[in-house]
Amino acid sequence: MSIALSATSYRQYFVDQDDTVPEKIVVQRDSPRGLHFRRAGPRQRVYFESDDVHACIVTCGGLCPGLNTVIREIGGYRGFYARNTIQLTPKSVNDIHKRGGTVLGTSRGGHDTLKIVDNIQDRGINQVYIIGGDGTQKGAAAIFEEIRRRRLKVSVAGIPKTIDNDIAVIDKSFGFDTAVEEAQRAINAAHVEAGSVENGIGVVKLMGRYSGFIAMYATLASRDVDCCLIPESPFYLEGKGGLFEYMEKQLKENGHMVIVVAEGAGQDLIAESMRSMNHEDASGNKLLLDVGLWLSQRIKNYFTSRQKMVINLKYIDPTYMIRAIPSNASDNVSCTLLAQCAVHGAMAGYTGFTVGLRVTETRNTVVITDRMWARLLSSTNQPSFLSSKDIEEANMMVEEEQPKQTVDEEKSMENGST
Amino acid sequence: MSIALSATSYRQYFVDQDDTVPEKIVVQRDSPRGLHFRRAGPRQRVYFESDDVHACIVTCGGLCPGLNTVIREIGGYRGFYARNTIQLTPKSVNDIHKRGGTVLGTSRGGHDTLKIVDNIQDRGINQVYIIGGDGTQKGAAAIFEEIRRRRLKVSVAGIPKTIDNDIAVIDKSFGFDTAVEEAQRAINAAHVEAGSVENGIGVVKLMGRYSGFIAMYATLASRDVDCCLIPESPFYLEGKGGLFEYMEKQLKENGHMVIVVAEGAGQDLIAESMRSMNHEDASGNKLLLDVGLWLSQRIKNYFTSRQKMVINLKYIDPTYMIRAIPSNASDNVSCTLLAQCAVHGAMAGYTGFTVGLRVTETRNTVVITDRMWARLLSSTNQPSFLSSKDIEEANMMVEEEQPKQTVDEEKSMENGST
Amino acid sequence: MSIALSATSYRQYFVDQDDTVPEKIVVQRDSPRGLHFRRAGPRQRVYFESDDVHACIVTCGGLCPGLNTVIREIGGYRGFYARNTIQLTPKSVNDIHKRGGTVLGTSRGGHDTLKIVDNIQDRGINQVYIIGGDGTQKGAAAIFEEIRRRRLKVSVAGIPKTIDNDIAVIDKSFGFDTAVEEAQRAINAAHVEAGSVENGIGVVKLMGRYSGFIAMYATLASRDVDCCLIPESPFYLEGKGGLFEYMEKQLKENGHMVIVVAEGAGQDLIAESMRSMNHEDASGNKLLLDVGLWLSQRIKNYFTSRQKMVINLKYIDPTYMIRAIPSNASDNVSCTLLAQCAVHGAMAGYTGFTVGLRVTETRNTVVITDRMWARLLSSTNQPSFLSSKDIEEANMMVEEEQPKQTVDEEKSMENGST
Amino acid sequence: MSIALSATSYRQYFVDQDDTVPEKIVVQRDSPRGLHFRRAGPRQRVYFESDDVHACIVTCGGLCPGLNTVIREIGGYRGFYARNTIQLTPKSVNDIHKRGGTVLGTSRGGHDTLKIVDNIQDRGINQVYIIGGDGTQKGAAAIFEEIRRRRLKVSVAGIPKTIDNDIAVIDKSFGFDTAVEEAQRAINAAHVEAGSVENGIGVVKLMGRYSGFIAMYATLASRDVDCCLIPESPFYLEGKGGLFEYMEKQLKENGHMVIVVAEGAGQDLIAESMRSMNHEDASGNKLLLDVGLWLSQRIKNYFTSRQKMVINLKYIDPTYMIRAIPSNASDNVSCTLLAQCAVHGAMAGYTGFTVGLRVTETRNTVVITDRMWARLLSSTNQPSFLSSKDIEEANMMVEEEQPKQTVDEEKSMENGST
Repeated sequence: MSIALSATSYRQYFVDQDDTVPEKIVVQRDSPRGLHFRRAGPRQRVYFESDDVHACIVTCGGLCPGLNTVIREIGGYRGFYARNTIQLTPKSVNDIHKRGGTVLGTSRGGHDTLKIVDNIQDRGINQVYIIGGDGTQKGAAAIFEEIRRRRLKVSVAGIPKTIDNDIAVIDKSFGFDTAVEEAQRAINAAHVEAGSVENGIGVVKLMGRYSGFIAMYATLASRDVDCCLIPESPFYLEGKGGLFEYMEKQLKENGHMVIVVAEGAGQDLIAESMRSMNHEDASGNKLLLDVGLWLSQRIKNYFTSRQKMVINLKYIDPTYMIRAIPSNASDNVSCTLLAQCAVHGAMAGYTGFTVGLRVTETRNTVVITDRMWARLLSSTNQPSFLSSKDIEEANMMVEEEQPKQTVDEEKSMENGST
Repeated sequence: MSIALSATSYRQYFVDQDDTVPEKIVVQRDSPRGLHFRRAGPRQRVYFESDDVHACIVTCGGLCPGLNTVIREIGGYRGFYARNTIQLTPKSVNDIHKRGGTVLGTSRGGHDTLKIVDNIQDRGINQVYIIGGDGTQKGAAAIFEEIRRRRLKVSVAGIPKTIDNDIAVIDKSFGFDTAVEEAQRAINAAHVEAGSVENGIGVVKLMGRYSGFIAMYATLASRDVDCCLIPESPFYLEGKGGLFEYMEKQLKENGHMVIVVAEGAGQDLIAESMRSMNHEDASGNKLLLDVGLWLSQRIKNYFTSRQKMVINLKYIDPTYMIRAIPSNASDNVSCTLLAQCAVHGAMAGYTGFTVGLRVTETRNTVVITDRMWARLLSSTNQPSFLSSKDIEEANMMVEEEQPKQTVDEEKSMENGST
Repeated sequence: MSIALSATSYRQYFVDQDDTVPEKIVVQRDSPRGLHFRRAGPRQRVYFESDDVHACIVTCGGLCPGLNTVIREIGGYRGFYARNTIQLTPKSVNDIHKRGGTVLGTSRGGHDTLKIVDNIQDRGINQVYIIGGDGTQKGAAAIFEEIRRRRLKVSVAGIPKTIDNDIAVIDKSFGFDTAVEEAQRAINAAHVEAGSVENGIGVVKLMGRYSGFIAMYATLASRDVDCCLIPESPFYLEGKGGLFEYMEKQLKENGHMVIVVAEGAGQDLIAESMRSMNHEDASGNKLLLDVGLWLSQRIKNYFTSRQKMVINLKYIDPTYMIRAIPSNASDNVSCTLLAQCAVHGAMAGYTGFTVGLRVTETRNTVVITDRMWARLLSSTNQPSFLSSKDIEEANMMVEEEQPKQTVDEEKSMENGST
Repeated sequence: MSIALSATSYRQYFVDQDDTVPEKIVVQRDSPRGLHFRRAGPRQRVYFESDDVHACIVTCGGLCPGLNTVIREIGGYRGFYARNTIQLTPKSVNDIHKRGGTVLGTSRGGHDTLKIVDNIQDRGINQVYIIGGDGTQKGAAAIFEEIRRRRLKVSVAGIPKTIDNDIAVIDKSFGFDTAVEEAQRAINAAHVEAGSVENGIGVVKLMGRYSGFIAMYATLASRDVDCCLIPESPFYLEGKGGLFEYMEKQLKENGHMVIVVAEGAGQDLIAESMRSMNHEDASGNKLLLDVGLWLSQRIKNYFTSRQKMVINLKYIDPTYMIRAIPSNASDNVSCTLLAQCAVHGAMAGYTGFTVGLRVTETRNTVVITDRMWARLLSSTNQPSFLSSKDIEEANMMVEEEQPKQTVDEEKSMENGST
């Protein structure tokens, strides 16, 4: 018989398997009901016996604060990894959440779905956790399809990693909070540098290829930024209403300014710049694609060539310093939740799903009934300090048997297509 | 003619006055629809002309990270405080969000509703922002009632402050994230101290009189805690299943342990202790009410008196060091939102309301249509970089006139009783 | 044949065995020449063959930032610990300097010299490194004497640990810089708490039983402190020129104040308080010995009982939070130096000595001839990038043979009695 | 009659005017006595009456942590700046040491000695404090000469600023400690990035045009660096014993490596590179002069072109993020000392001098007699808590009268040429 992973076995902490979370929460007149997602969390009936689980974890792509916290949490469940290639034990992962990067290492580039599934099959792995970005999740979907084709009883769980926070249905990707916090250092430095000289300009490039979330939140949190440029909001440099005009005005009024630019901002302008410079030095191309360097050069050219002002521009690219730090407390909690939900999902027999945080649980004032408390109990392993009478009463609430869930039944993904 | 406060005037950023937010988001079978709150945000029609606004801000109670960020944001709207007693200008509040505490000062203790309203009347104040905890919000309600009785055209906006995060309908109170982050330092120290000696025990007391949110999240984020005690979850010390038994087991297995205790935990046990010690030293009473000191003493007594083990207990109370730090990036964004929403509400003519964050907005992948971007534009004052054609199209979307809203009409509170 | 430990073998980096360092550096008229200490550093001739070394490291007493850095550095020399009880390898100690506390654990209390030396003898240990405070160093001296009595060829090296920086002949004890830095957090918090209320008083207790170095430097670095009380400078509370009078003046002028008190300050006053309270509650005694609590209570009593002012006092004791943090960059360098010097001394056959930093090396503008560069080369293991011609020239500088040094010859201690 | 600036007037705290500090402290056989510097500190007799002082402060060149602390300390002496253009009051500078940068602003470029001295004369300034690097100090010398030529009674005090710590006779320049500490972040990030991928290489460029002090100390403090390249130690890339060979070995052994390079390192190699690329794209030149970018490109080329290994290089340039942070506790103390010594020197009538820290004071175990305590008393303004009897005894120690010192007498500089 299967048992729940969490230290407590009270009905109240289990998620009913019909619970859903709506995509749209703000209720507008006449709006359709919209998509609902399956709610993550521990199920009363689980598919895998703990002792039979042979899981593996993969991390791919660029670094993101919190990777080790996710790994720690998945790897921290006792007895999971007895036959895994990289033996993760609760002890060996005990402190890794305090380090940046990923203890598993990461790589970019192609993968051979068939070989991977062969490997999973050969090693007897029956739970696969894949932590990575868009490309990685597509690879995970291919692996899931191949596993289904072969009718293997293997759960595939995707844990989306995107420091940019640019995944559509997910409210908050792990590492994002930490990135916004750490970005403050660069913005502060740019502000101090710009503010200490005449016509000082600080330019900070932040992550965000397709979305400006980090740039936007870092700007809102800092309040020292005079201009934030993001991919979603096109801008232009010259002419009325353009960036240069605004900069001239700001410099005249305040004597200095700070610009935050997301790495994906202004790509159309850069492409245009490069077309007009056609036939020129090819080796410089790659450099020009960096919006921070490109923008800094354009600003310098503008103010220098027209002898408008003597400016003093400082460009800061804190990308690697942001990516590599350990996750902060808030992201540590998020990572813990994500990992626990992924394990709960896989244990319950779901497969081909990704987990994501939608900040939707209404907190109760009485924290004891909060699901978060169950997570805590499972994380500390402390006793519940409840008397046997309490437990009896709680058990009384378990009324009906639920059918056992299996991966055979081809569970639908919680998010994304089956 | 009234104008919006934000730098942009595009229809898409305004909140429709009929938008609501449900109290319960997880959709369960057969659950009733439940309470819905009025959605906060900028309204297309505002009640006050910017130039006519004479506002005041009050902070009360204990310190909480983010107070200055809230003050900065309310005070940062140009021209608001020309006739205010403490002249706040955008320039004077420019950097205050980087400091802990409150630039306005704070006090505890009673207030005289009639005198306060006399004062508001005498000074011609027509917007009152009150930042404080439960008691303060009750005072605010009394002020609001008196203002309504006198038929003054004065908006009263409450901004709830509770570092403990223990307000029922609000998802996340400002300062909470920062407190959890800073609490990590104390937990880390307790862990290092406990881990460096034989049978080391680290006890950390964290804020939380009626709720264990900070203790719970700090524990989840740290992963170094072996036991977390909170007000909502009763516990007992001696006997089977009690704390001491658990401690003995932990010390034998790991050689050390860390306990986090919320300040309101175990109050019943302390009360009991005191009753049994009746007729004893009265001067010690106050000390015993501190759960951290009380628990540390009880643990020492237990292990010493029974000669069970030679333990080495270190007690850390980081409360003031947590309360006094500047808010982190995440809380800075929350504070900015709260303050902006309070101003939007007051400007729109709402009164007798409190603002609160319910993390419910579904983020769009295209950030430019996100309300957060409007907040950013209003916060940096940068141009929108949109061509006149874009603006025309946007204006086309404004279809119908809305009736002007006034405080005369006795707007219902967004949260709380009218 | 013996070889040097450092990666470079150039004469310039070796310390001549007759080099000394004077105790008094400021030259005053007619002052006697004073004590000179033997200079620490690598010797050209070493006593122990690297492969024959069997060393052990002991840490004792309270925590101090940098303990792990010292352990790492001693333990990082390849091949040292083949037969040691706690096997330290360069790999196992690789990251420990980033953690607070001590990986070796620490204990207080007596020791049995004969048993310890038996143990050293039985295990074939020939180098003993003892990291600890005054008491520990006295124990080390006893161990050294017993080893000498038995005519064992064992080097005993003491590495003084005192976060208080109160060792006479040493300029800077490791961990001190980190402690002063971390103390700023508590002082900042006290300042913010005091400054946010009327008549706010922040009291911060810092380490320092017999000396006020930490309190003094933390005060100088912070500039937010209005009064610093240390053991070396007696003070009194009441009457003209007393602390209370000064406090009243400060509160009237500034509305708030911050007091830093070293733990050993005012012990005479506390003793006096206790005598006058004779026959009173014995259980309170221990509490009264904490100068921070005692002073806070006295201040509260003074202002309350005389109804002088309503004050708002916040007491912060950050001791454990300071002791447990990892050492900062400056202390990491100090710890590295100390450990390297201890190893150099032991390898050169010195015994019964303690190492200490006296900040006396005049830095050369050309860093390459600086001894610090040799330390760096030995720490990174990077190549010297010098051509064979450079090496030849350098070798030419080695002119004369030095007699091999042995522990048999009863080397004098560098500091302390033989 | 003139009085000392410090709050205490006890003889013991005054520097005897004949005290000197030797340049070389390590005593070597047969070494000549060498240069001695005049000792800085408060003199019993001062030249300027406090009320007659009209001082100005100038900051020049790049940012350096601690500038504001120096400004605060000079500006904090009451009554100094009554007629100064930028009115600095103790209140206005109260918190500036907690901010990075310089509140006075800074500029590079030429200056007109005659105009400056005219200006000093016109405004009645009689104390000039000049904070800046080598060029600035040369300018200060020119100003001093012109002032002497005009026989003005104006003290000129230079406070050397060089984050690189590359001033010959000074042991520790302010900001250096902070820079080394902050550099750890970049090295940590490089280490995490490098360690999370196969053949990961982290390259961190640190400040240091002519000296590698920051690179060297940051490397020693971090222990994660595999290779440190500095201006004083030439290196080569290719061939036996070269950097590439070392890198291949490291990557094969450890799978990753971290390189720290001072900005002035390898300038000869870069110059050579550029000569060989003669006639090529001129626009690239400036870029190539950045040793970090140049080295990163060379490493990539080497490993790519020869298909030796697929490497993954991450380049981090944290320069501006290091320069702009507030100074740490240790540097705050240094800055305070420097500024107090500059003021003491100017007040005593010295002119044409620069102040610098030589870490030479032997600390006494009894801190009360330490000069640092006098500095603390002067910085907190707290009472000395000494009875009148103590004072009498202390006064007894003042035996002889010293001649009043004046700027007319053309005091020699403490360091540097007159």
